[in-house]
Amino acid sequence: MASEAGAVILQLFVLFAAAKVLGGLGGLVRIPSVVGEILAGVIIGNTFLRDSLQLSGEIEFLEILAELGVVFLIFTVGLETPFEEMKRVGKTSLVVAILGVVLPFVAGYAIMAALGSPTIEGLFLGAALVATSVGITARVLAEMGVLGRTEARIILGAAVIDDVLGLMVLTVVQALGQEGSLDPIQIAILLAQALIFVGLLMYFGGRLVRRVLHNNPLAERWEWTAPKGPMFAIAVVVCLGLSAGAALIGLAAIIGAFLAGMSFAASDARHDLVERFEGIVQFLTPFFFGFIGLQVDLGVALSVWHLALGVTVVALLTKVVGCGLGALALGKRSAFAIGVGMMPRGEVGIIVALIGLSMAAIPEGLYAVVVAMSLLTTLLTPPILVWAFRRLPPAQPERRNAA
Amino acid sequence: MASEAGAVILQLFVLFAAAKVLGGLGGLVRIPSVVGEILAGVIIGNTFLRDSLQLSGEIEFLEILAELGVVFLIFTVGLETPFEEMKRVGKTSLVVAILGVVLPFVAGYAIMAALGSPTIEGLFLGAALVATSVGITARVLAEMGVLGRTEARIILGAAVIDDVLGLMVLTVVQALGQEGSLDPIQIAILLAQALIFVGLLMYFGGRLVRRVLHNNPLAERWEWTAPKGPMFAIAVVVCLGLSAGAALIGLAAIIGAFLAGMSFAASDARHDLVERFEGIVQFLTPFFFGFIGLQVDLGVALSVWHLALGVTVVALLTKVVGCGLGALALGKRSAFAIGVGMMPRGEVGIIVALIGLSMAAIPEGLYAVVVAMSLLTTLLTPPILVWAFRRLPPAQPERRNAA
Repeated sequence: MASEAGAVILQLFVLFAAAKVLGGLGGLVRIPSVVGEILAGVIIGNTFLRDSLQLSGEIEFLEILAELGVVFLIFTVGLETPFEEMKRVGKTSLVVAILGVVLPFVAGYAIMAALGSPTIEGLFLGAALVATSVGITARVLAEMGVLGRTEARIILGAAVIDDVLGLMVLTVVQALGQEGSLDPIQIAILLAQALIFVGLLMYFGGRLVRRVLHNNPLAERWEWTAPKGPMFAIAVVVCLGLSAGAALIGLAAIIGAFLAGMSFAASDARHDLVERFEGIVQFLTPFFFGFIGLQVDLGVALSVWHLALGVTVVALLTKVVGCGLGALALGKRSAFAIGVGMMPRGEVGIIVALIGLSMAAIPEGLYAVVVAMSLLTTLLTPPILVWAFRRLPPAQPERRNAA
Repeated sequence: MASEAGAVILQLFVLFAAAKVLGGLGGLVRIPSVVGEILAGVIIGNTFLRDSLQLSGEIEFLEILAELGVVFLIFTVGLETPFEEMKRVGKTSLVVAILGVVLPFVAGYAIMAALGSPTIEGLFLGAALVATSVGITARVLAEMGVLGRTEARIILGAAVIDDVLGLMVLTVVQALGQEGSLDPIQIAILLAQALIFVGLLMYFGGRLVRRVLHNNPLAERWEWTAPKGPMFAIAVVVCLGLSAGAALIGLAAIIGAFLAGMSFAASDARHDLVERFEGIVQFLTPFFFGFIGLQVDLGVALSVWHLALGVTVVALLTKVVGCGLGALALGKRSAFAIGVGMMPRGEVGIIVALIGLSMAAIPEGLYAVVVAMSLLTTLLTPPILVWAFRRLPPAQPERRNAA
């Protein structure tokens, strides 16, 4: 037990150190540090380090640290995003999300149809192209200090809606692959669950936090437990609880984390929470990005590179065009920045392909293509996103983010 | 993967929430919150919750979160403990540690001899009684804000020395159990490794941190990676690296973490690091204490209660008397407080018993006795420790802890 713990701490040490060194080196030449952190994972996963660190077999604990990392990252992004601000951009986010779902899905289906593959493979590729993974975008925007900009808020809102729509698409495709038919009642229940979950939290989360937690004598007597008040522990509980709740009804855990953060965004405790979560996020997120890199098998990725490259180009273009069209009213540069922010597929695309693979609905080769596409879109987004946001006209002073 | 992550987040949510609620309730009636956190684990581990949360099988990830929790907890304790202060109490710590190793070992051996058990069982019980687990004491002292007191520093110093001595004892006992004979060269190498590791870090750790990291232009260019400077990432790297190093040479990982913290204790970054690690520690440590509780099997514990109770009383008394004698020059109340701080055996005692069990050197019953003793000493320490420190005369103003 003791030496086993030592081996795990050694793995975490190497991964964290490599991520920080490569992230820092990237920073010196103005490449967003997330790219360096992902590359650290790729290098460790494809060299002798993989075996000498015993990272070949079960690395469940690393997956969980990674998941916690992105959950807390998105929670702190939620902390910077009060509901009032989201409401202002709600309609634009909705259009961005819908167009950003329709175009990639149709394109994915069309590619496989053009290649003469079975219908179900087209449906799965379409579903994998739908999923937006907002973790990487959120991290880049947070690092640039632009989470308060309208464009950033539209991306975050669209990512939430995108996840609800993506859940629907995946459920439909999964049902078609499994039984060849649809149970509309099941779909309706899932949709209702997701909408109620998101809707209730959006509208009542912040109010509940202000009503229940502020000026509450019980909360103040809890002080002895946590010297600076119990708000931090309560925030962790709410964040973990809503993340688990979102995952249990089929949404991504980070949707729950985002809504949890939003609920605290207008509370007096916000500033204190931002500081308190900073260390956790800085400690855990390198494991998220490193873990993405660790999953890259360069050998497999190279064997399907021609189709992977084509699909990646389609994946990038359909989000930029689809989401961009939805936000064209804000001007071309803003529309482009929003489209770029929605590009990364990250782990969500991989999960969709994994389901298809486990159902034997898609072949191994197509799975490798989706994995390569997910990683390429994730790696390519940060530099383009930084460039796209630098080109934007200066934000209105009152919209600027205080943090 | 998605729903699996959801299940794990649900487990973490329940454990964290239960620990915080019971810890907070304990706080209301002035029971140290660690006791509540351990009880939360005991309750979850011994009710329907264990099965419904699927906590029966492999919970490796929880063990790792627990280990990280105590590593960062002890790192922050090290941050409050500059080497200069430790040097002042070094001799007292040494005497406290030695007497606190000899008495429990002899008593453990004597108990089994009196019961007519084989010699090897007596040696293992003795070794299990030697191990001090400083995590719980450190948490209570940190909560009370008395880490700056001489008594607290003596405990921390003695815990480090105790771990080196405990490693020696365990190695000797293990060799006797396995081969029936000793290889003095192997023992000498282990001892030399441990002493060099601890000695080098104590004397040069702080100097290295000040020389290498301060006024270093390269460190400043790293800024882009971590908006508030790279010191936090460097501290995490050093903490994980030294923890892994300590574990790899057979010491407890927390010894490395403590020495890492001590190395930053006199640096300009100390205050910022204390704040940055606060959130991590508050998030992770409930998993450490909850995990201790989760491992309690009340059924087994009750079946050996008579011997367990006797051994526990011996475990408590031998540390209080042994360690207390070593610190008698400070006055009776201080000596008592120091002895109480050294009482908990925690996970270290359990590890020793587990080694004995896996070597078939001790029977299942004796293993259960050691587990019960480890947990009882851990549960009984916090209230007694709070009481013992409240009885102390006020500290000299210049020794008081700023935090």
